[in-house]
Formats: sequence, structure tokens, C-alpha cells
Amino acid sequence: MTRSASPKQIAASLTELWSPRVIAEVDDAYVKVAKVQGTLGWHAHADEDELFLVLKGVLRIEMEQGAVELAEGELFVVPKGVRHNPVAQDECHVMLIERKSTLHTGDVVNERTRSLVEQLRPV
Amino acid sequence: MTRSASPKQIAASLTELWSPRVIAEVDDAYVKVAKVQGTLGWHAHADEDELFLVLKGVLRIEMEQGAVELAEGELFVVPKGVRHNPVAQDECHVMLIERKSTLHTGDVVNERTRSLVEQLRPV
Repeated sequence: MTRSASPKQIAASLTELWSPRVIAEVDDAYVKVAKVQGTLGWHAHADEDELFLVLKGVLRIEMEQGAVELAEGELFVVPKGVRHNPVAQDECHVMLIERKSTLHTGDVVNERTRSLVEQLRPV
Repeated sequence: MTRSASPKQIAASLTELWSPRVIAEVDDAYVKVAKVQGTLGWHAHADEDELFLVLKGVLRIEMEQGAVELAEGELFVVPKGVRHNPVAQDECHVMLIERKSTLHTGDVVNERTRSLVEQLRPV
């Protein structure tokens, strides 16, 4: 990336829900943005933490030991191995940071699973 | 981190300029926030990329091949090995993501250099 990027603006421009777009890379991690609404489904990433930063709206992250609700501007890291299910009652825009090796829906494949090829389409 | 955090609120609460505070970790990287004004000084990180996301104000990142100016909500990644100098004419709050091994002012030590011990004080 040789120019700056606005995660909020790129997230707002996405047309498909639950389909993260890679906007930058930092060492072995990708920075992604996504537009979400509804639920992604329960899954875990055995070896990778996953950071969520809410750009717009509210995101609830359900975990077996409880849930966190993130307002706009708040972040949370789901530790590796923790089963979780992101839920947004209304449209929500998020920024994600996760290692390049991280699979979209972790150990689960469902109708919302997206490959990294789709995530790497040019912004 | 078992609770959510607001990078904006934590950055606003900092009392010392150019003294990053670690607010979360994602795998081998730290998420930090800092309050900055003036200039940090030219330096490079030979082996680590460095992500800047502006939470408030405007940050100019000078590099030998040119500069980028980041408005609130914009991000930029300084690639490993690239000499850079962050400059903020007015008070600016930033979120940083960099590998845990990253030194504050890289290959340079100056009066603004902070150790990681200071950055890890409880929020």
C-alpha cells in the first residue's frame, strides 16, 4: 500500500455481506473490512487470534463463556481456539486483523464461507 | 483482554506525548495507542511493518520517497526498512499495530524513545 486507506469508506462501499476485503497487510497479518448483518455461524481458529474493531453499528460476539457487545469504535480480540459467533442485529461495518493463514469461518465451512481469493479483489 | 476496549477513549486519556500504551495483543503483534504532537524523529524498523490508524486529528508520515497525510479514520502501513518520521502539527491520537519485537524509535534512540515496559502499564 503506497497510499492511505479509509477502512470506514471501503467497508461502506462493499456490496456483499460477510465477505471480508483485504485492505492492507502488516507483516504476516491482513487488515480486512467487512459489512455484516445477521450471524456468521459458530467457529474457531485453532492457531490464530482475531481482532474486531467496529467501524459502524454494533457487533455482538457470542462465545461459550459469555458474549461481548461492541459499540462503534470498540475493539475486541477473540483468542485463538475460542469458539465464537459474530452477530449483528442491524447492518454493521467492522475492521478485522488476523494472520494471513486464518480461514474465514475457521474449522467450519458453511454457506457464508469465503475464500481468500475473493477477499483479495482490488479495492 | 476479556472486555472490549475503546482505542479513542484510551488515547484521549493518555497524559504523555509520544508514549504508546499497549491495549491489546493479536498473535505476535501489539495494538497500541498514542497521543502525539510535534515530531518523533527519523527512524526505521528493519524487520517489522508498522500500521498507523488516525483516531483524531491529522498525522503526516514523512518518508524519503515522499509523505502521506492521514486524516481521522485513515490508515497507512510503513513497510519494514523504510525510514520515516511521524509529524503532527496539532495534537493527534493514533492506533498502532506492530510486532511485539518492534522498538519504539527503531534503529535510533532519542529523547522520545520509550521502552516497552512503559508501554505495558495497565490501562
